[in-house]
Amino acid sequence: MTASPRHRPFLTDARAPLTREIAVVNEHGIRDTVSIPAERSLTVYVDKRELVTLMTLGAMPELLVLGYLRNQRLVRSIDEVEAVTVDWEVQAAAVQTRDGIQDLEARTSQRVVTTGCGQGSVFGGLMDEIDDIRLPGDARLTQGQLYGLLDAIRLQETTYKSAGSVHGCALFQGERMLMFVEDVGRHNAIDTIAGWMWLQDPARMAGDDKVFYTTGRLTSEMIIKAAQMGIPIVVSRSGITQMGYELAERLGLCAIGRATNKHFLCYTAPWRLTLQPELAAAPRPARTAPQGA
Amino acid sequence: MTASPRHRPFLTDARAPLTREIAVVNEHGIRDTVSIPAERSLTVYVDKRELVTLMTLGAMPELLVLGYLRNQRLVRSIDEVEAVTVDWEVQAAAVQTRDGIQDLEARTSQRVVTTGCGQGSVFGGLMDEIDDIRLPGDARLTQGQLYGLLDAIRLQETTYKSAGSVHGCALFQGERMLMFVEDVGRHNAIDTIAGWMWLQDPARMAGDDKVFYTTGRLTSEMIIKAAQMGIPIVVSRSGITQMGYELAERLGLCAIGRATNKHFLCYTAPWRLTLQPELAAAPRPARTAPQGA
Repeated sequence: MTASPRHRPFLTDARAPLTREIAVVNEHGIRDTVSIPAERSLTVYVDKRELVTLMTLGAMPELLVLGYLRNQRLVRSIDEVEAVTVDWEVQAAAVQTRDGIQDLEARTSQRVVTTGCGQGSVFGGLMDEIDDIRLPGDARLTQGQLYGLLDAIRLQETTYKSAGSVHGCALFQGERMLMFVEDVGRHNAIDTIAGWMWLQDPARMAGDDKVFYTTGRLTSEMIIKAAQMGIPIVVSRSGITQMGYELAERLGLCAIGRATNKHFLCYTAPWRLTLQPELAAAPRPARTAPQGA
Repeated sequence: MTASPRHRPFLTDARAPLTREIAVVNEHGIRDTVSIPAERSLTVYVDKRELVTLMTLGAMPELLVLGYLRNQRLVRSIDEVEAVTVDWEVQAAAVQTRDGIQDLEARTSQRVVTTGCGQGSVFGGLMDEIDDIRLPGDARLTQGQLYGLLDAIRLQETTYKSAGSVHGCALFQGERMLMFVEDVGRHNAIDTIAGWMWLQDPARMAGDDKVFYTTGRLTSEMIIKAAQMGIPIVVSRSGITQMGYELAERLGLCAIGRATNKHFLCYTAPWRLTLQPELAAAPRPARTAPQGA
């Protein structure tokens, strides 16, 4: 396919160490050193007005800021963003927009404190948009592709492996990993992916064949954000909450959880998942009698 | 000691189911049912003015609201709270204060989006208070008490065991569990404990001999909230982030992580932890040569 010429805002490429070594004492009274993930504040200014301070690992701050503006619906199009300039010296991200953000005050006044932490702040109206979202009806994933996806995650070099205490998110096309990012916060990670997607050719970023993976729980806000990115299939190493479940059902979004090795549970929209039980390990006894697929 | 007569606000005892059963399909194409945790919205009104909407499991909503008001520093004393009335029918919590909250607008205007999820919202100034906090210098925990604490957690009946995807928090006096609560959000859980502590006799709630346990990571906000409750020792099943580590060091707060069974790592203020290595299992080789305790 031919990629149409895209507006690409100026982005810095600010770097900062993602881990630091600290001294610890363990249960044997033995001193050891371990790595812990960085956690730093990044204050976001939009056209010189302070918007918010994010606490982040700092892996991809420019994409995080872009995705935050996108997922919070503060900026409708990437074309409106002229530049994102991150300077870790002052722990600040300066966003320059083409025309400014209309009534920023009003649009950031309503607070909904959400589950992830569980007190993430989503500026008003996320829920209002749910019923306008139409996910591609024909999007499917095979069990074999799901296993390929989980294998790619397993092989990924991560801060989690070296330091723990971070969440990972990834965007897949079938079983091919397009983008992987970690952050101390689950929502920062998914926002960073939203920012990355915003920079790509929209034709190539259609949600149809995309799968979103997260190590975190499938809470209401994670489902909403995936749906807003047009992604019809979400895979998590963790479980799902009731509101995440109900939203996924309402959206016809296929939510798959407890996904590690060959195991998984498909919570919603199972018609999007092409089962290949022969690929699974030998069955363990189910808690209820088998009723077929 | 004699408990002084305490003002106790009127609190409802609103109940709602904490889990629901859903049908799933697993990797063998077998249908099964699993429990998932509830996640419901609770909109908090203070003196008839909307403050915030919390997404919560709903185990102890009245204590959650009290603790939220306390930890956000919106109400300085429990004496200012006349009543917290929760009605799940309308998913609302009505807080009635004695004199109202002064300049509520101003005090809830500044947003800091924090790590837990990682976009928890802390209304301004939490960090400003850090340097005013003095934790009791003589507070200690023995390794034996720590093991007793971890054993109590292991034996606790939990929504986590039945449904997963929730965080647990507990308040201990030495190894004695005083309070345990779970929520879909880590911060809701710690806020609920803060609310419970607010209702107790302050003399009995002095932090000196208290230990705070959380299943969640020790991020900056978790350390700050524990310190604000005067608790000098924090134990987590998970790890610690850099800002959590630096704050704990600055506060002289003993942060212990990776605490399961007999294993743990003491990250900060090791002088508060009385090591008893003889209680630990046989040592595994340390990554660095032993240098003594």
